[in-house]
Amino acid sequence: MTKNTKVNAAILIIGNEILSGRTKDTNTSAIALWLNSIGVKVNEVRVIPDIESIIVDTVNHLRKTNDYLFTTGGIGPTHDDITAKSISRAFNLEYEIHKEAFKILEAYYKSGEFNEGRQKMVWMPRNANLILNPSSGAPGFNVENVFCLPGVPSILKSMLGGLKNKIAGGDPILSHTISLKTVESVIANSLTNVQDKNKEVEIGSYPFFQAGNLGVSIVIRSENQIKIDKCSSEILEFVDEKKIEIIIR
Amino acid sequence: MTKNTKVNAAILIIGNEILSGRTKDTNTSAIALWLNSIGVKVNEVRVIPDIESIIVDTVNHLRKTNDYLFTTGGIGPTHDDITAKSISRAFNLEYEIHKEAFKILEAYYKSGEFNEGRQKMVWMPRNANLILNPSSGAPGFNVENVFCLPGVPSILKSMLGGLKNKIAGGDPILSHTISLKTVESVIANSLTNVQDKNKEVEIGSYPFFQAGNLGVSIVIRSENQIKIDKCSSEILEFVDEKKIEIIIR
Repeated sequence: MTKNTKVNAAILIIGNEILSGRTKDTNTSAIALWLNSIGVKVNEVRVIPDIESIIVDTVNHLRKTNDYLFTTGGIGPTHDDITAKSISRAFNLEYEIHKEAFKILEAYYKSGEFNEGRQKMVWMPRNANLILNPSSGAPGFNVENVFCLPGVPSILKSMLGGLKNKIAGGDPILSHTISLKTVESVIANSLTNVQDKNKEVEIGSYPFFQAGNLGVSIVIRSENQIKIDKCSSEILEFVDEKKIEIIIR
Repeated sequence: MTKNTKVNAAILIIGNEILSGRTKDTNTSAIALWLNSIGVKVNEVRVIPDIESIIVDTVNHLRKTNDYLFTTGGIGPTHDDITAKSISRAFNLEYEIHKEAFKILEAYYKSGEFNEGRQKMVWMPRNANLILNPSSGAPGFNVENVFCLPGVPSILKSMLGGLKNKIAGGDPILSHTISLKTVESVIANSLTNVQDKNKEVEIGSYPFFQAGNLGVSIVIRSENQIKIDKCSSEILEFVDEKKIEIIIR
């Protein structure tokens, strides 16, 4: 893929613990920020339960409608960890012991500790490529454009760096934030005008309430710094006219 | 809907700020925990961008495949707030000024402050039912089985209570958590056995690293407390046999 091509991805969070509300998902944010830095835009996120048929169908849909698909969760040693098996079915590949992963975990654990539970973590789709895990041994894997990562946020984050050479991104997606001491309704019309004049730039408006302060953050996103700067100065122009206090410019 | 029927819902998070990684979604957890308490299970969550055609298509899919659909985000006064317009299109309803919402906001704001930006927030699908907002005035709305809530978490939470009578749930979904000082691989096989013997109960296993402690939380979920208790005692039985330290039982 050459630079300047728009490259997109979907994220698939596999896990009943997110759907039940017990756990708040932070992996989407970690993956999305990292992908943006290497020029990949996240188009869609889905959270689905630990049910094989749903995983298979969703993976097969998202891997075809996006350049990349990242899954999180379900690659541990317990009964509810069924991602590797589901990915095998999605690609119609054998689900089998991955020899390289077996060697890695055999060396990682002390003698006698590489038990049956842990051995489950080396069952993968045939010929999957490993994603090394510098935190806790057990690797993730990828098949074609699908990358399977663990659900534990600290482990997932430690594995992203190792993926860089496997992902062909476009230009990094840049952003600039202007924070104002105002409310959205005061700036809504002026902001619409700026957006209308700068259609290739994504402008978001987000009210916040922090430490007793009411404010709005305006986030300008594009692959092109010059376009961001132009937008930014048009925004600061109406902010100045309206005599709105700037918190961050 | 009578009790004991399984009732399910989808959550649709509308917002570029989640897809860019700038903001971590906490609304899923708030809505899911509240829905569980009134007997509604969340089947699926999707996060999509502020693009009208995508919102329309996704709403039309999810409202037909779930008993309820909850959307968050996109109902403020700025250009990127297009949820109400999109829902109108999804249901093929006029997008127009909602008289009751207009009266509420006219009374809420001081004279002269109900400006053009704020007036955008009273544009809704024709005959939408209002969801009152005790925090910041501007109401959400619902059309048939689709409930549209704001994206700001504190405001969203304040509006859930008012929805209770509009949602017909089943039996509350109960859960019990057992936390152990162990690693997943030690309990994986025994836990599989318990799950196999208790197929109607959902058992999740979640490793954690807290304050230097390595552990596993086992979460048992069901509408039936007796089934949870049976599972729980079967788990505590193997935990005792394996001499695993219990953190929370």
